[in-house]
Amino acid sequence: MSERMADDVVLSSRVRLARNYKDIPFPSMMNDVWASETIRRTSDAVATLPDAAGYSFVRLANLSKIQRQEMVERHIISRDLLRSADVAAVLLGRENTVSIMVNEEDHIRLQVLLPGAEVEQAAQIAREVDDALETRVDYAFDDQLGYLTACPTNTGSGMRASQMLHLPALTMQHQMGAVGQAVDKLGLTIRGLYGEGSEAGGDLYQISNQVTLGRTEAELAQAVRETGNQLADMERRARKMLLVKDRAGLEDRLMRSVGVMLYARRLGEKEFMQRWSDVRLAGSLGLVQVDVQALDQLLHSAQNGSISCRAGREMNAQERDEVRAQYVRTALGAH
Amino acid sequence: MSERMADDVVLSSRVRLARNYKDIPFPSMMNDVWASETIRRTSDAVATLPDAAGYSFVRLANLSKIQRQEMVERHIISRDLLRSADVAAVLLGRENTVSIMVNEEDHIRLQVLLPGAEVEQAAQIAREVDDALETRVDYAFDDQLGYLTACPTNTGSGMRASQMLHLPALTMQHQMGAVGQAVDKLGLTIRGLYGEGSEAGGDLYQISNQVTLGRTEAELAQAVRETGNQLADMERRARKMLLVKDRAGLEDRLMRSVGVMLYARRLGEKEFMQRWSDVRLAGSLGLVQVDVQALDQLLHSAQNGSISCRAGREMNAQERDEVRAQYVRTALGAH
Repeated sequence: MSERMADDVVLSSRVRLARNYKDIPFPSMMNDVWASETIRRTSDAVATLPDAAGYSFVRLANLSKIQRQEMVERHIISRDLLRSADVAAVLLGRENTVSIMVNEEDHIRLQVLLPGAEVEQAAQIAREVDDALETRVDYAFDDQLGYLTACPTNTGSGMRASQMLHLPALTMQHQMGAVGQAVDKLGLTIRGLYGEGSEAGGDLYQISNQVTLGRTEAELAQAVRETGNQLADMERRARKMLLVKDRAGLEDRLMRSVGVMLYARRLGEKEFMQRWSDVRLAGSLGLVQVDVQALDQLLHSAQNGSISCRAGREMNAQERDEVRAQYVRTALGAH
Repeated sequence: MSERMADDVVLSSRVRLARNYKDIPFPSMMNDVWASETIRRTSDAVATLPDAAGYSFVRLANLSKIQRQEMVERHIISRDLLRSADVAAVLLGRENTVSIMVNEEDHIRLQVLLPGAEVEQAAQIAREVDDALETRVDYAFDDQLGYLTACPTNTGSGMRASQMLHLPALTMQHQMGAVGQAVDKLGLTIRGLYGEGSEAGGDLYQISNQVTLGRTEAELAQAVRETGNQLADMERRARKMLLVKDRAGLEDRLMRSVGVMLYARRLGEKEFMQRWSDVRLAGSLGLVQVDVQALDQLLHSAQNGSISCRAGREMNAQERDEVRAQYVRTALGAH
């Protein structure tokens, strides 16, 4: 029940494990020969997994700039992986819920991404894949410290667990500063997922653990889930408060965004993100019938990289905004 | 054909005749006894018309403030009639297309209001009613000057003919200054129908003749029709130009207004007028299916007076804006 309910706030959960080969220098120190070796070793190991047939192997060098951007927008690869694009690769499995990035900051970044508040389920899957790989390769591991990583903050379990949260009511009520401090005290961190500086495009935030040393994977996942649940409860209370204070004003704002999403002929990415947030909140409050799953897919599929990727070419901003508006209308079932 | 086509620009046509009783001082000079006498004489005359049963008789003193405002918004009575509300009356006939105002600036103001570019038809109806009344009463008439009126500009035929035009494309292209000068040269005048100063709410304008002396009723009506047709042609060319210059930009603007009209939960009168103009243009350009007749009715029925009148009470601005948004959604067939 609580997991089911969380979907009005928690969009997705992610777990990422950092691993390095014992006998290969860390990526920041290695040459291209070593880089090829990590790719070979990792793909060979994945090839012997029981579900190996479900994996695809992609070298970033073989992707266009817009194809890479599209994968970042879908959170299938990290933005950091682009920095080493000429020597990086990714193995995608289990219908893109598992992605094994090679030659990011560490040799291996194993990521599991699930919709909803399923961080412990994601941790479980990550552990299964990690255990299976570890029977095939040797990782840099210290009995005292745990897994060794390029950045010391990842040393230990090497795990980062996170949730993506939609917090429009807390944002509208200017409570994100206080929320940030509370999250900090719990040893977690919160940041806007899109946009620059303190603004969070789409009112979307990510909570994640800051350090991994000295805590088990299960403890980390649990901490993220519990904090996510607390924020979700705060957000729900804030939504109720907004309705009590000025129902008509809130409905007007949200429904205008529904109207714009269904009728606009040009939508910039920034405006799209804000309207998207309004429409998702309108759906959660029952003001409109929205397929929330379709809406959440739209979040990445209507961003610049995805738009250009589907078109198969670069577009100027105006053309892209027109294609986005058309795409959004179709996705939301407008005529 | 040309009359039919004009509906995309010409909303309505109006003819108004000014008449005064021979033996009663003009309204600005008369006392309440004389005012009662003009009302009695006029209603007695109307009562003997062949279609007398189709007329209703209303004393403004018996109407509430919001009921009066509603009649002004529907153009059934003039705003000037409100200034003498305590001694004024109106006789409404032929399904409100004919209204005979008593004790406005003149004893009698006979008005005929028709939808579309039907100014000559309106003049014809006004003439019929006027002729019928004139067999029953004695008007102040001079063989040289024609009908005598309170204001000398009305002396002569006593007729003012006008059309209400929707000129959004000319407005957007900042051509209304040039249009005003051209209309001036033709001996007509143009002004914004709503809004203050130079702004024309809803991009709605009225053209009318300035003087009546020395021109026959037929000539005046013809001049207004011809000028209206010219402006309508200019407006249509301006619309085509806008589409050529930036079709997507225009469509985006208009369709966003369609979205807002269908989804907003609060609509101020000023915003409503602008959105209304956009939606009417969208309908005329075939971007959306709109019942133009329903839209034109909405123009007055969604204004402040009509909203309050239907509610049967005064409302604060916020409540009225919410009722307006609801009313607009229903009228446009939103769910």
